[in-house]
Amino acid sequence: MSMILGFDTYDVRFPTSLRLDGSDAMNPSPDYSAAYVVIRTDAADPGEPGAALAGHAFVFTIGRGNDVQLAAIRALEPLVAGLDVDEVLADLGALYRRLVSDSPLRWLGPECGVVHMAIGAVVNACWDMAARRAGKPLWLLLAELPPAEIVRLIDFRYLTDALTQDEALHLLEQGREGMAERMALLRRNGYPAYSTTPGWLGYSDDRLASLCAEAVDDGFTQVKIKVGARLADDKRRMAIARETVGDKIGIAIDANQVWDVPAAISWVRELAPAQPAWVEEPTSPGDILGMAAIRNGVWPVKVASGEHAANRVVFKQLLQARAIDVMQIDACRVAGVNENLANLLLATKFGVPVCPHAGGVGLCEIVQHLSMFDYVALTGTMQGRMIEWIDHLHEHFVTPAVVSGGRYLTPQAPGASTRMRPESLAEFSFPMGAVWRATGLLA
Amino acid sequence: MSMILGFDTYDVRFPTSLRLDGSDAMNPSPDYSAAYVVIRTDAADPGEPGAALAGHAFVFTIGRGNDVQLAAIRALEPLVAGLDVDEVLADLGALYRRLVSDSPLRWLGPECGVVHMAIGAVVNACWDMAARRAGKPLWLLLAELPPAEIVRLIDFRYLTDALTQDEALHLLEQGREGMAERMALLRRNGYPAYSTTPGWLGYSDDRLASLCAEAVDDGFTQVKIKVGARLADDKRRMAIARETVGDKIGIAIDANQVWDVPAAISWVRELAPAQPAWVEEPTSPGDILGMAAIRNGVWPVKVASGEHAANRVVFKQLLQARAIDVMQIDACRVAGVNENLANLLLATKFGVPVCPHAGGVGLCEIVQHLSMFDYVALTGTMQGRMIEWIDHLHEHFVTPAVVSGGRYLTPQAPGASTRMRPESLAEFSFPMGAVWRATGLLA
Repeated sequence: MSMILGFDTYDVRFPTSLRLDGSDAMNPSPDYSAAYVVIRTDAADPGEPGAALAGHAFVFTIGRGNDVQLAAIRALEPLVAGLDVDEVLADLGALYRRLVSDSPLRWLGPECGVVHMAIGAVVNACWDMAARRAGKPLWLLLAELPPAEIVRLIDFRYLTDALTQDEALHLLEQGREGMAERMALLRRNGYPAYSTTPGWLGYSDDRLASLCAEAVDDGFTQVKIKVGARLADDKRRMAIARETVGDKIGIAIDANQVWDVPAAISWVRELAPAQPAWVEEPTSPGDILGMAAIRNGVWPVKVASGEHAANRVVFKQLLQARAIDVMQIDACRVAGVNENLANLLLATKFGVPVCPHAGGVGLCEIVQHLSMFDYVALTGTMQGRMIEWIDHLHEHFVTPAVVSGGRYLTPQAPGASTRMRPESLAEFSFPMGAVWRATGLLA
Repeated sequence: MSMILGFDTYDVRFPTSLRLDGSDAMNPSPDYSAAYVVIRTDAADPGEPGAALAGHAFVFTIGRGNDVQLAAIRALEPLVAGLDVDEVLADLGALYRRLVSDSPLRWLGPECGVVHMAIGAVVNACWDMAARRAGKPLWLLLAELPPAEIVRLIDFRYLTDALTQDEALHLLEQGREGMAERMALLRRNGYPAYSTTPGWLGYSDDRLASLCAEAVDDGFTQVKIKVGARLADDKRRMAIARETVGDKIGIAIDANQVWDVPAAISWVRELAPAQPAWVEEPTSPGDILGMAAIRNGVWPVKVASGEHAANRVVFKQLLQARAIDVMQIDACRVAGVNENLANLLLATKFGVPVCPHAGGVGLCEIVQHLSMFDYVALTGTMQGRMIEWIDHLHEHFVTPAVVSGGRYLTPQAPGASTRMRPESLAEFSFPMGAVWRATGLLA
């Protein structure tokens, strides 16, 4: 028998606030960070002779509080250490349900915030481990699971008024038709991306324009810019972007939750003539009724939300209330792959396309697997779907996500693409890594 | 100038799982706990010659993870230590907004879970400090604030589609009419309570019956029992309770979130003939649309919820969607007194009575101040309103809440009633306090 031995945790932080990468109306100067966990076992890793099997994953944070997130991850260690590796990997639905059902930890949410994201990291690390052991990239491992097994991975609690097990099974069985052809297409052509690299709020107009031009040259068909601080600035920046990219490229706008409902409606109406592809996070990510009112009020501008949706119950309601045109899952905000499978099935049931949130630290790397699963084994289409792309910090990953010609290349390496380079873990460890000792930010 | 020096934190846990006090369908064996914080200053405490002014508060948890909650509280210390005591206490709205707006910590919610509750503890501790320095119990300090100052304490972000600053001001100004008479009545007669002491799911039928009889003898006009594990058990326990208390005493039922929407409707319909006073937390506390569907489906049984509502945005929606008949605030789940002032104003605007969640560790002690403020300075009525009461763990507090004849006696001592006895802090410290070393639970 092989056993889960325990967790190693790392407080990894990148001093991104020095250049205002990642700056938006809500988050003026983030230090992109990862509360990073390695789940160690004494099993063998078939892909790496002599090495022990391990699973890597993380929660993306923006600096202060990364240590609190790590404390929550470590609080899960006693529930996982000592378990049999084969049993865990054979029934990841059971592990997920055990973690979200632990009554004292559930009290600290329920199913939201630091504890819920910690469960996401642990669940995702186990999926990384499962995929490595299977010798497959995560998207392929998921796509090849029988529909009934996928249904067993999901916690239908609180969902059955919108999606039953039978409906989920039916959607997954439908999704298998033509799967082999789509796998071949995916491997050949990859998956569409859009670029947020140009649009950070702290960037100058010149930088905005040159990065927009670069994005078009690189083959992207949509860019995204941050809005919501000053209306005059937004109009000017939107005009610069539109002039640079032309009429055929989409320009999404992202307010990062800064508006109340009435303000969102009037502000977006002001920007509507520039034809934004969607408006993202116009208000509180948990304000389902407010989001629905905004969607009605800003028509024909589309509303996108979900990167900060706490759990599947919020997604269920956003869909039931017809509050969103585009659903944006995040790989690390909810309780991992399992809860995101529920989210993908909900979106499919309601006919809303999923365009995942990415960027941050490693979010592109992991979430691409979920969109690719969605295409190959569930919705069968890329129509109206694309994954966010920010060309930033990928060099710290062992098998980084790669975008070329405006498309994510399909990962081939075993695992969930979540593994950071050991040198990066060391250099960017907070506060004692070489980079932090050198920045002077700690003084 | 006096300064906030820093935080002392305590991991306090009571081994309540030994007797199944607090057991319900979601939480079978909790150890009632407090992530406890003392904010120290070098100001003088006018009520205690020679002592330094301090503020005490806590987050109530049910055991495992209390340390994670403390880590979040400690993460706030750098934002508060070093501030001028006079400036902080003169503008607690500014402190509250600064804490909930800290962008990296907000990312870990937003406004939910461990970080949000930590802010609640810090804000509440500052209110304890303010009330001690004013030499008044918290309810009185709040009631005597001018309406415009109360409005300044509130963060209206995400609320203005349901409640504007002007509306809030108007409600508070209306609430002042007859305040002096109500203060006198409150001091003389206290505030209505209902008792949950009888109804824990782990109690035997005999214990249920004898505790129900005791509650009636003690003057309570409503008791509450836990339901949701087995329907046959619920029917039997409901019948026992009804037979014991008679037709004039209300029996509320509490499912602690265990049902999906369809299950909640059918289960509650089965129990409806026994005329429950309300059904509490029938489903996910964040499922606004589900709660509204349940309320429609179980009519004429009333729906109560809110103890696990993450923030004012959830309360706003529960009210907008007409999803609840009774709104249950919790003093320690949201971001403290300030956010609960918003919650009380929302309930007033929508005409829904507030019956706070209490029990736990110290929840009765602190939340009584909010209901008393609500009566004296806002709604002006106790009609349909009562505070939960569980006769449990009060002996650990310096000025415990006292219920007599089924009513909370009005607190007179300065502060928020949040201060635990130093002996209790020591004895129940986890894991090295005397009680934990003696229980053998740590083996």
